[in-house]
Amino acid sequence: MSEYKLHCFAESGNAYKVALMLELTGQSWQPVFVDFFNGQTREQAWRDEVNEQGEVPVLEHAGERLTQSALILEYLAERSGQFGPRDEAEKRDIWRWMLFDNHKFTAYYAALRFIYCLTHSGETDVTKFLRGRATAAYRIVDAHLAKTPFMVGGRLTIADLSLAGYVFMPEDTGIDLSEFVHIEAWKARIQALPGWKHPYELMPRVAG
Amino acid sequence: MSEYKLHCFAESGNAYKVALMLELTGQSWQPVFVDFFNGQTREQAWRDEVNEQGEVPVLEHAGERLTQSALILEYLAERSGQFGPRDEAEKRDIWRWMLFDNHKFTAYYAALRFIYCLTHSGETDVTKFLRGRATAAYRIVDAHLAKTPFMVGGRLTIADLSLAGYVFMPEDTGIDLSEFVHIEAWKARIQALPGWKHPYELMPRVAG
Repeated sequence: MSEYKLHCFAESGNAYKVALMLELTGQSWQPVFVDFFNGQTREQAWRDEVNEQGEVPVLEHAGERLTQSALILEYLAERSGQFGPRDEAEKRDIWRWMLFDNHKFTAYYAALRFIYCLTHSGETDVTKFLRGRATAAYRIVDAHLAKTPFMVGGRLTIADLSLAGYVFMPEDTGIDLSEFVHIEAWKARIQALPGWKHPYELMPRVAG
Repeated sequence: MSEYKLHCFAESGNAYKVALMLELTGQSWQPVFVDFFNGQTREQAWRDEVNEQGEVPVLEHAGERLTQSALILEYLAERSGQFGPRDEAEKRDIWRWMLFDNHKFTAYYAALRFIYCLTHSGETDVTKFLRGRATAAYRIVDAHLAKTPFMVGGRLTIADLSLAGYVFMPEDTGIDLSEFVHIEAWKARIQALPGWKHPYELMPRVAG
């Protein structure tokens, strides 16, 4: 039996943040498929039993259920002794970027990708709005990565894993990624890490 | 001279989270007006000198600059010994709600209010989209507050102060707040706290 169970589905970059952390730190884990596209996370029973916030990822470990990718990443960094902060200043810096990720970098990109690429909305005022917001967040991260190979402390940390949730997703959101040369170089550095896997390889895409 | 300086403007609910915390814990603080509506947070000089993420609030204290409202709230809770967690389980619970707030509850409401109420966009597909997302987040918080007077531990914590960033803003976003009876009752409880002040009383609305 695996030590960790991760409620997830392949298309969720928020779940991928945790799946990749589990993989890179060499944990024994298994996915529990969540049928998001058929509304499972909106069902009252799922919210009552698994997560009242109606979101993946949910990590089961030692009889507890943990939610929110940033908190789960911190938990796994503490337990594994890998990819966490070395001191208080780094800790604050990691959280500063994980919060920016949750508020803007992942948030707008994920909403754009869901609507534009997964529900096939075509171009609308909403997709234009989300692309504008996502692009502004990408510019801020790109400017930071112009100065440093990874977000905090010059090495891979959970701040990188948080921000990397959706950047390997293959769907074309209509954002010209060639503008973000520092993000592209950072993605290549992450992809070159031993044990790196694509989200669609790490997590189930359909039930069963 | 005040112990704390808060870079802010009255219309920012994210800054209000921190301003209200400073006020309720009885700190000596002064606002530093940020001219958001004339683009100050988008200027390269401001980003280089004050916050590369281009956002308020920024708290100056003891020669350091802190950003991200959730991190600042935690810092002030630790320093003041007020409104923080009593144990590790509460700490995780507080962070679970502050992350949900950053990702969804504040994020969608603030974007809707900015576009619909402050730029006077009128009703568009974008405002309808944001209202739908904000309403979904409000329902999740309302369901939680049906079970407890405050978000965590039965008393006011920084989780409440984070979620309360925009709920006292007077502008009509077109969301029918009477649907959210538990949020309305919680707002009344916060408003009744000794020292509570409205955002437009706590922070400057124009330069000077």
